Amino acid sequence: MRKVAVIGIGQTRVAENWDKSLRELAGDAILAALQDAHLSTADAFYLGNMMSSSANNQQNLDAYVTDWVGARGAESIRVESACSSGAAAFRAAVLAVASGEINIAVAAAVEKMTDSPGAETTAYLATAADADWEVDHGVSFVALNALIMQRYMHEYGWAHQDFANFSINAHQNAINNPYAMFHMPISQDKFDRSPLICDPLTLLDASPIGDGAAAAVIVPLESQFFTSLQKRIIVAASSAASDTIAVHARKDPLWLSAAEKSAKLAYDQAGVTPQDIDLFEYHDAFTIMASLSLEACGFAERGQAPKLALENEIAIESRIPVATMGGLKARGHPVGATGLFQLVEVIQQLRGQAGANQVPNAVFGMAQNIGGSGSNIITHILTNAS
Amino acid sequence: MRKVAVIGIGQTRVAENWDKSLRELAGDAILAALQDAHLSTADAFYLGNMMSSSANNQQNLDAYVTDWVGARGAESIRVESACSSGAAAFRAAVLAVASGEINIAVAAAVEKMTDSPGAETTAYLATAADADWEVDHGVSFVALNALIMQRYMHEYGWAHQDFANFSINAHQNAINNPYAMFHMPISQDKFDRSPLICDPLTLLDASPIGDGAAAAVIVPLESQFFTSLQKRIIVAASSAASDTIAVHARKDPLWLSAAEKSAKLAYDQAGVTPQDIDLFEYHDAFTIMASLSLEACGFAERGQAPKLALENEIAIESRIPVATMGGLKARGHPVGATGLFQLVEVIQQLRGQAGANQVPNAVFGMAQNIGGSGSNIITHILTNAS
Repeated sequence: MRKVAVIGIGQTRVAENWDKSLRELAGDAILAALQDAHLSTADAFYLGNMMSSSANNQQNLDAYVTDWVGARGAESIRVESACSSGAAAFRAAVLAVASGEINIAVAAAVEKMTDSPGAETTAYLATAADADWEVDHGVSFVALNALIMQRYMHEYGWAHQDFANFSINAHQNAINNPYAMFHMPISQDKFDRSPLICDPLTLLDASPIGDGAAAAVIVPLESQFFTSLQKRIIVAASSAASDTIAVHARKDPLWLSAAEKSAKLAYDQAGVTPQDIDLFEYHDAFTIMASLSLEACGFAERGQAPKLALENEIAIESRIPVATMGGLKARGHPVGATGLFQLVEVIQQLRGQAGANQVPNAVFGMAQNIGGSGSNIITHILTNAS
Repeated sequence: MRKVAVIGIGQTRVAENWDKSLRELAGDAILAALQDAHLSTADAFYLGNMMSSSANNQQNLDAYVTDWVGARGAESIRVESACSSGAAAFRAAVLAVASGEINIAVAAAVEKMTDSPGAETTAYLATAADADWEVDHGVSFVALNALIMQRYMHEYGWAHQDFANFSINAHQNAINNPYAMFHMPISQDKFDRSPLICDPLTLLDASPIGDGAAAAVIVPLESQFFTSLQKRIIVAASSAASDTIAVHARKDPLWLSAAEKSAKLAYDQAGVTPQDIDLFEYHDAFTIMASLSLEACGFAERGQAPKLALENEIAIESRIPVATMGGLKARGHPVGATGLFQLVEVIQQLRGQAGANQVPNAVFGMAQNIGGSGSNIITHILTNAS
């Protein structure tokens, strides 16, 4: 398997982008990534998306977007694994280039969620859970996370206020990210008084939906496509693992076994340990998912992730910087596109292009994208080391 | 890129499978393929599906199916490119194994369409067309094919009855395929008196929707996973190309440029010409698509495919046997699964397991899966030559 590198990135702002169609959003990110790579087109396009079939009455996104960006004729394919569709598209592109079959691949992901009424969006999101054994019994995604959080607090003795810093840190970091949805800081007091959505989850535990797209250009590491203008970031590890789709079918609903498995595979591939990771773009769809991801990946002991947040060991200059550009919580969570935003942000950090949020001397950055309630988890480690 | 081979196949009957859930259908095909390969599980699962998000309220199919077949934890991903999702899943598996990252991959595809009312299914299928510039103006998939056929008949001077043998041949071949939806022959007279759906398309020009699943097990050609019990069929070529999603945006709506491009790539990879292909599982969703596919792949001159049918050069023992197990027309068209049925049937032929429909001395078999109105086309050539 040949090694691959990323030589271009692009993203739109996450927002209620009512003035942009699905193809315009995807196109804006892809064309920005190609321009950043000093290329005009690519051999193949891998597109992550979760819910355009329902929210936009549009499938077959591959041809739809490829033609729009002027690459009519090129190979293109959509991949979907619910909320981890973005990282799945990136991994598909990595494998295609690694195989030797494709020389220049674009991995992109797009989601346009805000055209639909909220109740419909909740139903579309619920297609990531088990239709027969979860959704038909009335459980939404927010409810599944609330049930897990309730049990976690009971089991490990945490109070709701102990999760505040996950959200405070994310909002703080988003202020300096022009692509983020929110640009306002929040306080402990605001977190504590946030309206309840589904006990114990409040509004400020949850990430917002949004419209947006992100993209990356992937080429072989030993490649004639590099010019002196391009900054290349190496894909040191790419891995994926699955779990049950239904939470109730797990031996331990408080442990993300697919996160543990894919992180372990990634550490082995990259030849690193959690101590070597300089920043971690985790999947903070809810504060409870932030906690479970930190624990499964070895950054905190089981049941102890809130301690990391309470001690502020998740800020830019601390033990393990997370959500460095705002995370799902404050950059926004355009569900099938989120995984590619995470990867683009890791690359910004490793290139030294993260501005006021720059993690000093970052060498290894990790991104973990969680599909469903932890049923499909994809982990990447990137590096600027040669 | 290492070469890969198929060592196991499985399929369900295409039918109105009301007694089977989506995961049961997928599971039946996957477990049959694994059993056929004398394996109990795989490292990764690539699942093709078009419309489960709408028709079954279920996305995140990867984890959903992987857990069901007893492979909890394994990597799994869904790929979608409308009607060519089945072949796209196969190609994703081929590239993953070719890259060296995955050793045993299952490519599977499933569709469960008959639980939904017909009008809804028509709307779900229409998501493969351009939502803004085709569907919003009232065009369904049947209508798009009717418009193309109308123009084709005008341009090349064919009458509707000249297309009959595409359907007669498919129905004839399906009689001996226990997995086919239809087991009744049709005649020229029946074709000519078939009810009009959308001028000039009649019911017997069109393939039926259905529920079904198919699967294949893919391993490296040089592999410790072979035993003497396994029959291996080599993937000689795998290629994909795209076109505009909207038919009106094409320079020539009567030419499948993505079919031509992906077929040419496949011939080059396999080192063959159309004359070397012993059977062709084409995408006969409508008789007009059968014609356009034959022409774009070099089996007929432009505008002359109906002549091949009229002269019966498409039967089992003729110039280019097509739809050898019934094709989309009579095996049935479970839309996102069709591409994998085509590949499984090619493998049955190359193994000499096609029973009464066996193409004598078949060495190279080709399958072409068409997404949308020709917007995304994937071609595979397989061989039993070593």
